[in-house]
Amino acid sequence: MTKALQFWFEYGSTYSYPAAMRVEAESRRFNVAIEWNVFLLGPLFRDQQALSDSPFNAVPVKGRYMWRDLERICDASDLPWRRPSVFPRTSLLASRVTMALPVQFSANFAKSVFAANFAEDRDISDPEVISDLLRAFSVAPDDVFARAQGSEVKSALRAQTERAAELGIFGAPFFIATDGEMFWGNDRMHDALAWQAKLRV
Amino acid sequence: MTKALQFWFEYGSTYSYPAAMRVEAESRRFNVAIEWNVFLLGPLFRDQQALSDSPFNAVPVKGRYMWRDLERICDASDLPWRRPSVFPRTSLLASRVTMALPVQFSANFAKSVFAANFAEDRDISDPEVISDLLRAFSVAPDDVFARAQGSEVKSALRAQTERAAELGIFGAPFFIATDGEMFWGNDRMHDALAWQAKLRV
Repeated sequence: MTKALQFWFEYGSTYSYPAAMRVEAESRRFNVAIEWNVFLLGPLFRDQQALSDSPFNAVPVKGRYMWRDLERICDASDLPWRRPSVFPRTSLLASRVTMALPVQFSANFAKSVFAANFAEDRDISDPEVISDLLRAFSVAPDDVFARAQGSEVKSALRAQTERAAELGIFGAPFFIATDGEMFWGNDRMHDALAWQAKLRV
Repeated sequence: MTKALQFWFEYGSTYSYPAAMRVEAESRRFNVAIEWNVFLLGPLFRDQQALSDSPFNAVPVKGRYMWRDLERICDASDLPWRRPSVFPRTSLLASRVTMALPVQFSANFAKSVFAANFAEDRDISDPEVISDLLRAFSVAPDDVFARAQGSEVKSALRAQTERAAELGIFGAPFFIATDGEMFWGNDRMHDALAWQAKLRV
């Protein structure tokens, strides 16, 4: 049984960006291991809330607030920030590539995707952009793309997203401690780490 | 021009409860004055999100999480907490009575309503419960009720709710600094106070 805190993220999710960029540094302070879990939020929004778009687009007054809030959060953490010209960007390709990669690359690849989307305004649904990001890793991009489009990875991502729904996840980022305690949002990252730290006796 | 941080709250809102109970103590640490603004969230949910119920009832998986989250927040702040047997409770009467009261009673009356709803599971839409709460104040309950049902207070609450919408409020609690900076949620209370404190040079 793993003793890691589960960190669930979606590449299109604005608040997943600061969480992904900061979770490792914060987790070291708590001596807590992190299990990175990519999933697709779209199917959950559709099934749970009958939403076919981000709630931040569906409710413009909430969206306007969110962009300003994100800017403040990134300022406070010295994180680079550029509002994406397309929102939300389709995360399917980047998510499949994440699952096709050897697990030791998950965290760094995920951070590079988040930075591309939210700090550099690059199109993470574009295979060329993803190829470019893969250059930082000792992998053959063609092999990774082939595996990412294969039925094994496609099913694995679908299963991962179904597991998220079964666990009671409804947004991103989301943290689940080894005792099942759940924490939603970048605002709860600290509480989630502190909770998990207390479980490691 | 007031130099107070605006604190907008709705009596049916779960996260408004810990904010209302803690905002005065926190504000003293920052030497920031608080302007208490009751409003009705229902009309905003209806107009902005086409919701006729709390989002926590409309999306059960989110509701289950919220109840646990609230419990943790109250634990952490040593606030009494009992999950209301009816949610959300109708806040119209309590809101009108708040506006009918002399302004020096607003904060303490508001806190007594929140405690009744979220710590004692009492029906804040029941005139007898509100009468009982009014006993703590040097007012004649009958006079307050008469004023609360009068057209002046009814229009004032309607205007207050319209003002909330115009300001860009979409949830509760909500904080607005004197420079217009907006903060949504109990989670942002500290940031809102710190922001306002920096404006008082």
